[in-house]
Formats: sequence, structure tokens, C-alpha cells
Amino acid sequence: MSSQEVPKTGRAAIVVHPVPKPGKGELLLRLSATGLCQSDVHFMKNDWHWPISDGCNIVGHEGAGKVVALGEGVDPEVWKIGDRAGVKPLDSVCGECRSCRRGHETHCAKLVAVGAHVNGSYAEYAVVTAKYTNRIPEGLSDEMAAPILCSGGTVYAAIKRSNARAGQWLVIPGAGGGVGSMAVQYARYAGIRVLAIDAGDKEELCKSLGAEQFIDFTSCSDIHAEVKKITNGGADAVIVTGGSKSAYENTHRMLAPGGTMVCIGMPGAGVASAGGDPLELIMGGVAIVGSLVAGLQDVDEALEIAALGGVKLSNLHVHPFEELPELIKKLDAGKMVGRAVVKFDK
Amino acid sequence: MSSQEVPKTGRAAIVVHPVPKPGKGELLLRLSATGLCQSDVHFMKNDWHWPISDGCNIVGHEGAGKVVALGEGVDPEVWKIGDRAGVKPLDSVCGECRSCRRGHETHCAKLVAVGAHVNGSYAEYAVVTAKYTNRIPEGLSDEMAAPILCSGGTVYAAIKRSNARAGQWLVIPGAGGGVGSMAVQYARYAGIRVLAIDAGDKEELCKSLGAEQFIDFTSCSDIHAEVKKITNGGADAVIVTGGSKSAYENTHRMLAPGGTMVCIGMPGAGVASAGGDPLELIMGGVAIVGSLVAGLQDVDEALEIAALGGVKLSNLHVHPFEELPELIKKLDAGKMVGRAVVKFDK
Amino acid sequence: MSSQEVPKTGRAAIVVHPVPKPGKGELLLRLSATGLCQSDVHFMKNDWHWPISDGCNIVGHEGAGKVVALGEGVDPEVWKIGDRAGVKPLDSVCGECRSCRRGHETHCAKLVAVGAHVNGSYAEYAVVTAKYTNRIPEGLSDEMAAPILCSGGTVYAAIKRSNARAGQWLVIPGAGGGVGSMAVQYARYAGIRVLAIDAGDKEELCKSLGAEQFIDFTSCSDIHAEVKKITNGGADAVIVTGGSKSAYENTHRMLAPGGTMVCIGMPGAGVASAGGDPLELIMGGVAIVGSLVAGLQDVDEALEIAALGGVKLSNLHVHPFEELPELIKKLDAGKMVGRAVVKFDK
Amino acid sequence: MSSQEVPKTGRAAIVVHPVPKPGKGELLLRLSATGLCQSDVHFMKNDWHWPISDGCNIVGHEGAGKVVALGEGVDPEVWKIGDRAGVKPLDSVCGECRSCRRGHETHCAKLVAVGAHVNGSYAEYAVVTAKYTNRIPEGLSDEMAAPILCSGGTVYAAIKRSNARAGQWLVIPGAGGGVGSMAVQYARYAGIRVLAIDAGDKEELCKSLGAEQFIDFTSCSDIHAEVKKITNGGADAVIVTGGSKSAYENTHRMLAPGGTMVCIGMPGAGVASAGGDPLELIMGGVAIVGSLVAGLQDVDEALEIAALGGVKLSNLHVHPFEELPELIKKLDAGKMVGRAVVKFDK
Repeated sequence: MSSQEVPKTGRAAIVVHPVPKPGKGELLLRLSATGLCQSDVHFMKNDWHWPISDGCNIVGHEGAGKVVALGEGVDPEVWKIGDRAGVKPLDSVCGECRSCRRGHETHCAKLVAVGAHVNGSYAEYAVVTAKYTNRIPEGLSDEMAAPILCSGGTVYAAIKRSNARAGQWLVIPGAGGGVGSMAVQYARYAGIRVLAIDAGDKEELCKSLGAEQFIDFTSCSDIHAEVKKITNGGADAVIVTGGSKSAYENTHRMLAPGGTMVCIGMPGAGVASAGGDPLELIMGGVAIVGSLVAGLQDVDEALEIAALGGVKLSNLHVHPFEELPELIKKLDAGKMVGRAVVKFDK
Repeated sequence: MSSQEVPKTGRAAIVVHPVPKPGKGELLLRLSATGLCQSDVHFMKNDWHWPISDGCNIVGHEGAGKVVALGEGVDPEVWKIGDRAGVKPLDSVCGECRSCRRGHETHCAKLVAVGAHVNGSYAEYAVVTAKYTNRIPEGLSDEMAAPILCSGGTVYAAIKRSNARAGQWLVIPGAGGGVGSMAVQYARYAGIRVLAIDAGDKEELCKSLGAEQFIDFTSCSDIHAEVKKITNGGADAVIVTGGSKSAYENTHRMLAPGGTMVCIGMPGAGVASAGGDPLELIMGGVAIVGSLVAGLQDVDEALEIAALGGVKLSNLHVHPFEELPELIKKLDAGKMVGRAVVKFDK
Repeated sequence: MSSQEVPKTGRAAIVVHPVPKPGKGELLLRLSATGLCQSDVHFMKNDWHWPISDGCNIVGHEGAGKVVALGEGVDPEVWKIGDRAGVKPLDSVCGECRSCRRGHETHCAKLVAVGAHVNGSYAEYAVVTAKYTNRIPEGLSDEMAAPILCSGGTVYAAIKRSNARAGQWLVIPGAGGGVGSMAVQYARYAGIRVLAIDAGDKEELCKSLGAEQFIDFTSCSDIHAEVKKITNGGADAVIVTGGSKSAYENTHRMLAPGGTMVCIGMPGAGVASAGGDPLELIMGGVAIVGSLVAGLQDVDEALEIAALGGVKLSNLHVHPFEELPELIKKLDAGKMVGRAVVKFDK
Repeated sequence: MSSQEVPKTGRAAIVVHPVPKPGKGELLLRLSATGLCQSDVHFMKNDWHWPISDGCNIVGHEGAGKVVALGEGVDPEVWKIGDRAGVKPLDSVCGECRSCRRGHETHCAKLVAVGAHVNGSYAEYAVVTAKYTNRIPEGLSDEMAAPILCSGGTVYAAIKRSNARAGQWLVIPGAGGGVGSMAVQYARYAGIRVLAIDAGDKEELCKSLGAEQFIDFTSCSDIHAEVKKITNGGADAVIVTGGSKSAYENTHRMLAPGGTMVCIGMPGAGVASAGGDPLELIMGGVAIVGSLVAGLQDVDEALEIAALGGVKLSNLHVHPFEELPELIKKLDAGKMVGRAVVKFDK
């Protein structure tokens, strides 16, 4: 193990935690920023009922920082002390299972999920698997990179799965939220026309991010009809970023024939329903697709597009580390506006 | 209008009907066979609540026969008296609307549906739109062609949409039925491995058509688990051919990550539900797709593969025309076994 | 035939020509602008050796104007006098042949090519087939629309076929030319990174249109190596817009594995060669694709994106009609800079 | 390292070679069969001018046998002594480079090629990288599996890249050869119609393997015209399996619009040319694709289909190991008929 001088303990929201050692093939990162994601709260409450590994007690999966130590066997021509790197939802995949071999690595049979199987990024120091770690490209700050490592990658992958192309219409319910506002920008970067749906006070934000049209769901009496009117017959794609019952209810009705609805907003189990009467899906000629987080390559592409200036994160709020507990409460209460990042450095 | 000698009246299940005249761009066919399809009953009862055009009182959309007269403007180098041709669910599409231009012609905004907008194939003579009519290839009898013009094309198009490839697993609930048994064969023709699900008395039929594995839903206590076991982790695709509540219930759980469930079985409105908890779709990485009937090219391909020997229709039952009323009753009661075709000629 | 008052004769570069009458299913357009395209010269010289129909003596296939008369049978709910519409390279396709049915309509067995089979847009009045004519969207002027009806559509379709996605690298040799400069813009609209290649005096233009990198082919000693360096291993796609020998020579060597080279620049017969040693294509894992003009839907999409502001045509030069003969000479001599459009109106 | 009792030396065509030891993450295989491939001769002569690693002096990359020792770090739940496994052209890929991440692993920047970088299968014992090694499925003998590990996988991957679907036409020049005859069978398994081209004495073989049509290139005066006639306008795909000049010459002219020619036959450098006048590629609307060997998943699928009975290898000839030198001479002289496999066991 080659390393910089590394202290014995680090702060991990907010207790002092021993600095972990990178094992074989691993990197030790000193994080400068971590994003907050709604799923952190789900992990804490465990209302998705995932098995949590023993010793895994630090959530957070949107961390950005620098390599401070290399574990045994890490190729020193590939990773060097000082390289910038990130923590993302998946620490590693096996590369051998059916899902990995077929290009669905995010559904790896042996995936190692950060915050569930290994400790995450609500901490100054984090260990990651070198072969499955993303570099942070030049020109992208750590606090910008952090939320892209999860939400940004997720929406980027979802847009790919939606098959929406430049000049086509994508509807984004919840466009003003932390995830939705990234979806607006990644879609716009690819020339996709965006119809944002959110409460009226988000209209300005959504339009400033590139949304061409906006529907205020608090005042619109028939959202499906309004979408069909604006898009001249139905949207080419919809990405559901929220996890509420209403976000999913008959949302496929917004689509034109051949259209695709991508589900990324994760409700608690049993809360919502995607799909409905098969007669509607058949007569409508529509598809409903579930899309989990991004794989390694998709995160790389999402970071790259952000570094090229494609993502502005206008509603990104950077907080000192000390505010983390309070921010978690806000997240849990559903009162977080935009996307929050905490900085470990002063 | 150039024509053979054509009589004044024809039999149309079972009343005597005046022989129609082909209009501009139309062909008059003398049918020798028509298939019976579950949707005929839905049209008669109108429980899909489609608007039925005035003067449209003959259902049936799986007719096969010969051209006996050409309407004005039909290119005599393209269609000749005596050419074999078929009646299928869609008589014509506009070619100009958004769906047509984007390759989703079966969702044409101005589609002309046989049995709803124009008269169909439960009659000796039928008029079809020349430019949107399929030829019946050499080597395929009329009674074999008839059910392919609707069900065969539908399952063929659904298999395409499922993205299942040679060597992958396709599950077919209702594999022993009229539609399901065609799905088994079209899938096998393309080298796709078939796991058939049906009541135990259909096992022999399904296996004789090429199914590699069979699950008896009347005795299997956990079908989803059994599918996962046989397919070593989940199917690559499922095509739901039945229209019952249970056929659709959580059927996406049979899929492996990246898998696709295609819905073609059309229940009455409000009967069934496709999809479910978005959390499942997301964690499972699965897609649910609605697929209506086949377009012109897909029907051509389905007919061609049948002519190449790909479809045997072992459970095709050919009846004299006089039995049609009785057969419709059977269809309505859900008691039809296999696929029925009636012959107009003795 | 319903019509506005239409004069008896019109100007057609530059002779007075009788105003044609729209036949069944046709529209008569009064053009306000026509673009000039390199292929006009090929048609005039016939060095592609196409059969030219009798009576076809007006070239030009980038016309924009207004409907002034409807032929018999044109649906007055679809087209109205005064609607804006365009002349493009293909006046009609049959919709029935193998190519049409499989989505390759630009290779229709019975296609009617403007300038070869029917008269074109170097004239004040032109007749087009209603069902296969594009509307010009609001917000796009006739002189902007004209070159998009051919070149714009062609590059748009080529970009689609290149499979390049947002964030990937597309190399455009000849990026400063009339066709190339549109390719730069359509690619950028879709978030694709552009590496432009041209003579040094085009660098400013290319960069102003969105090119991220530029190679001056007059001074670069090893273009292939330079492309590999800039793109970090090879481009994801190349679109060859020029028709010279050197534009095609081993251009596939610019690609990364999995990359696609799309050929659209049409040299005279026997001039150039695309491809080369199969060993290179195999070891390189690359694809070479020929792409002709755009079909109806692709032209619609290209016009739509232009109307959304995606295409600026900074190097578009608008000339009075009287200059047409001189412009043709310039085109023939290879001295045209940018894209030329002539206006029929003062 | 856990192992069976392993001898000190083994036979390697034909010298006695020391049995290698499996390193970290490696498996030691005792082979029972190895296939002979034309590229073995290219490696021996090095006329593809690849850099050959020091100490690499055993060619052969189609070996089948059993695991007899596990190197350090191999997961004993994944691989066990006695498991059946194969040697294929690629021993390993890095999984991290641009090509690997984008699904083009066979173009890995750090690929380890058997016979060039590490020793191959012309030997009783061979070492392979565990994580990138294929299992041989039940029901497939070692001598059947051997040629599938290279040629079978290669044609299988090429068929995928050709986009040919069930019911479409695939032309296979050289269909009677070792590689071609596998292409015929994999295509047929997927329901693709095969037009075989070869010398007349191969007609019976090709048809027995499933080819629907056959052209004798020794007597046909215009092969391109004959292909167009048989396929009713041009093939959907062509796979060039031979490496001669004539195999490639203007072969794209056999294609219908939208068709794809896949190059897999590897000539010596400078021998042949794929492609030609861009005008033809553009007017024809065709694609030319280079396709190297198969990746791990494609080889798995090719083996699986063979185990399902999809590949018969009727022209497979099994020889005792002692005949290997003589067989190599035959291969070099271009006199090998069918596919040869040598057995190490008596």
C-alpha cells in the first residue's frame, strides 16, 4: 500500500470514525464533498427492505475527492495519489454474472451497494474499488461532481433508455426537484425538447434550465390533456423522477404511440403503481421501463457532459459539513428544495 | 373497374349480403376462408367501446381468397384478377400522420379497422384497400393464411418488440391457445427457447410445436419461481397472449434484468392490470410494452415464414361455413380450443 | 382543381416557362427561394449517369414557397391555399416496394427524383406530390428552409445513421462547406462534440457554429494521428461531406473501435474509394455506411430543429434570381463558399 | 494453488513442453481437443505483422478440456477442479478501457491474444484467465466445442452485427468452408434464409446444413445478378468468410438497400479491398462492417446454441494429435476441407 500521510481518524456525519484502509484493488479517497440523496433516508429507515451488511453504518453515495492511498495490486499507471475520483451508488459489480455480461451491470447478482454493503460518503474518508471507480474530469468542481455521481448518472441513463432524440418531446414531472432539474439539463444538452411539470414556483427555475414548456400541476385541471396539446398528440418520452402515488398514476397516458415512460423515482414499497389496464398500453403502443442507477460508463459520460458545461446545477446548495444532520431531517420531511451538497473542507 | 363475372349476392355469416363494389384504389376479394378471433366477439359486444361506423355490420378480419375485381386506379401491373390476397385487421392507414411517419402505423390517427369501420371477412366477398393489402405467398393455403393475417402477424410483431434473440428464453403464458400456439412456433423459427405455460392437457401440443419446457399452471404452486429456476434467473421476454386478470398479474416478475414483457392479450376494459409497484420495475430493470396488431410489412413477413414451413397450425380446425354461428358462441363462452377457420367453399 | 389566380408563365432560370398544372394529388407551389446544391451540376452534366426523363429540364431541389393551387383529390383539410411547403430531392416514393416497407424509402424502387424525373425548383412555379411534401414550420424563413430541404435533411439523416450520441466525438471533414457547416450545427444541437476539418480560413466559421476542435488540413502533417490524439483514441463517427478522392482516402482510420463512417459526399463515378483493406476494418471494428438524402420524416425533423433555432446558416448567402447562371458556374468550378440561395421575389 | 496431480511435462505440437503453472486468477486446463484455424498459420508466418511476445511459442486458440488446477485467488465457488472450460482467441481483456466500457471488448486496448501474447492450445496443458474463460455446456463434446470457441463464436457475432433477422436473406460466400459451414448453421438456427456460395462440390454439404439456395461460383457468370434474382432484389446481409481478393471484390453489390456486409475473412495485409466507390455505397444505402472474434458472452451464446443442437459440424474431421504437423501444412497450402480438430487423448 502506497499512501500520502493519512490521519488516524476522520469525521463521519458527525462522529469521529477511524480512517479505513484500502484493501486489495481498492483506493482510499479523501472526500471534499458529498451530495445528499433521497435514497439515503430510505437506507437509514430501510423502508426498501434491503439487507444491510454488518459494519455498514455510513450512508451517502455521492462523494467527490482525491486518492490518498492505493491498496495492494492497484496499477500505479492507472491510479495515482492525487487523482480526483468519486463515490457512487455501486462500489463494484462482478463482471461475470448474467446481468454483467449482457450489459445490465447495475443489476449485477453480486453488486456491492454503497451505504448498504459498504460504507459511503457521509464521511471524510472512503474506500472504493479501483476498477469500478470514476475519475472526475478537469473543469468540474467536487461539489458539482458529487450529485452527478448518483442523480446525474441516473437521469442520464434514464434519458438513454427513453430513446428520446433531439427534437422530440420529453415530459419531466417533478422537473424542479433535485433529480428533475438535472434531467431537464441532460435532455436539453442532447437537443431534446422538455416539457416540465411542477408546482408554479418552479416555473422560472425550469425554464432557466432549458425547459421549453411548463405545466403547473397545482392549477392544471387535466395534465394528460395539456401534455397531449402541447406536444401535438403525446410525448415521445416521460421520465418519472418523483416517488409519489400521483407521479405514477396513469402517467403513460401522456405518451404518443411508440413512446416510453421511464421510472426512476423510487417510492417506498407498496406506495405507487406504474402501468395499468393492458388495453391502454396495447391501444396506446407504449412502453414502461424501470431504470435503476447508472453503470460505470454512463456515470463517466454524465460527468463528461457536466464538465463540458452541459449541467449547471443552478439549484445546487452547498452547505458546511456541520449542517448535515439538519439537512437529513429536511430531506426526510420532504422539504429539501433543489440539491444539497456538503463540503468537508472549510 | 375490370372484373371477372361476379354474382349479385354472397353469403355473410349467414345472411345473404349484396356483393360490394370496389371503390377507387380498392380490390374486391372472393374469400375462401376466414379465421375466427376472440376480438370478433369484443367487436360484436363492443366491450372495448370503439365507435362502430354506420353500415359496418360484418366482423371478421382474417380472410383469405382471390382478387375478383379491381377498383378504379388500381395499378394492373401490381394487382391482377386471380391474385391471392388477404383481409387483415387494418384495412388502411393514412401514411401521413405522426404515427405512420415514425413507423407506428398500427396506431395511425386515421386507421380504418376492419369490423369497426368497414365490413370484414365473415362474408364471401370483401373489399380491401389495394395499397395496404398483403399477398398470400405460394405454398401457403388459404386456411393456413387466414389466422396468420391477424393472430400470426400479431405474435410475430410482438416477438420483434420483445427483442428476444436466438438462444434466449421467451415465456408464453397461454401457449396452448390459438394465439399462443402461433407464438411458440414463430419464436422457435427464430431460434428462441420457449417456456410454455398452460393447463396440463396442452403440454403435448406445446412441446410438439417446439416448446422446450412446460409449466402446468393448474398444478404449479409458484409459477414465477419455477420460471426463474428453469431459465436460470429469469426470462429474457414474456408475451402475454391471454386477456384474463391472472395472465397479467405481476407477470413482469418472471423476467431477468433487461427483460421485456409484451402485452398482446386484450381483456375487456378494466379487467386486468399490467405493471405494478415501480420499485419492482426499477429494481428488476424490466420493460412492459403494449403491442397491437401487425403492420403491413410484419404481416408479409409472418406469411412468408409460414410459407417457408415455420408455422404448422397443428391445432387449426377447419369448419364448413354453416358452423360459423355455433363457433361464435363457443368463442364467446371461452370454449374454443386451438384456432378455428371456416371455409366458404364446399 | 382549386386555385388562387395564377399567371400563365413563370421564370425558370432564366427562361420564361409555362406555369405547370397540378395533377391528381399534387400541389402547385409558388416558390420564393431555391437553394443551390452541388448535385444540380451533376444532374446538368449527368456525370452520375442517371436516366433523365423526357420533358425534365429544370433542376433544383431545395425550393420553398406557398401552395397556390391544389390538384384533384388533395384533401382540403390537409393542404390549403397559402400553406408553406417545400421542394426536396424526392418528389414521391411508392410506399409499397421492399425498400419503402422496410423504412428505406429513399431507395424506393419507383422513386421520383426532382431534377431527373420531374422538374425542380430553379423556377418560380413547381408541382409537388401532396402526400410526400413537407410543411415549412413557423419561424423559419423560406431562404433558411430551402437548403435544409436537401443538405440539411441529408446531414440530419447521416448523423442519425452515425449513431453518434451526446458527448461523443464526430469528425466532419469539409466542415466549413455548405453541407459541412450544417452538419456541425445539427450535431451540436444534439450535444455531439464536433471536430471540424477544413482549410485554415474556415476555422473561425466552424468554431462559431459550435465546433469544439479544428484541424487545418492544409498544414496538418498527419490528420489521422491528430484526430486520434484529440479524441483520445479515435472518433465515434465521421461524416464525409466532400466528394473528392482525398476526402475518402482511408478516412475510416480516424475511428475508434465501434465507430461509424457515414458517406454522403457524392463524387463523380470512379473518382474516390471508401473502405480499403478488410484487415483494417476487422481489426478496427469499424463500419462504413452510405447515406443518401433524407426521407419525408427526417426532412420534417430537420426543418423543425432549424425552426427551434438549432441551425443558423451563418454562411448562407442570399442572391437575387438574376445571379443564378453565374452562381451555377461558380458551383461547377468548385468556388462556391458557404451555401447559396436565390430569391425569386425582389 | 489447489490442484489434481499434474505431470511435469506435456506434449505441445509435438515437442515435450513443461506444464505451465496457473498464476493469480488463472486456471490450468488439460485439453482434450484443439481446433485448427487459418489464423494459426498467419500467426506462425506473422504476415499480419502483429508483435509476438517473448516466450509465446505455442499457437492454437480453440482448445477444450478440463480444469486441473486453480491459481491463487480464483473463487472456488465459481471454478472447480474438473469443470469443463475452453481456450479461445482472447485470453483476457482489461474491462476498463474505452472499448471495454462501450461493449467493444474484442478491441480492448490491453487485450491478451492467445498465440501472440500467451501460449495457446496446440498443447496438452494451457493456462487461461479464470474471469474471462467460457464453460463448455453439458451435451457438447470437447471436439465439437473446440472450433466453436473461435470460428463458431466469430460467425455468431458476425450474424448479430449483420442485423439479419428470421425470414431475411443472408449470403455466405465460402459457405462450404470451415467457417462458412458454421455460419450457415447459426444463421439457420435463427431462422435466417441462407444463400450459400461455393464451388459445386460443396452444394450438397451446404444444403444438408440448411442452405435454401446455392450458387456455384465456378460456373455462375454473374454472381451479383444471380444473388439479386434469388433474393428478389438483393440480400439483407452478406458475411464474407474467405480472405481472398475475389471474396471481397464489390461484394456489397449483392445487398439490397439497408443491407449489411460483414467482413470476417482475414486476408494477409494488402491482399484484398472491402468497399469501393462511395457513390455505390450511397446509392445502394448499404453498410460494410468489420467484425473480429467474439467476446466472452457471444462465445457463451454460441456454445449454448451448439449444445442445444443448433450446430452439427458435419464437416468436422477429428484427427489424432500426431497428425498435427501434417494438418498445419495442409492448412497453409489452402487444402484443408471442412474443419479439423485434433484429439490429445487416444
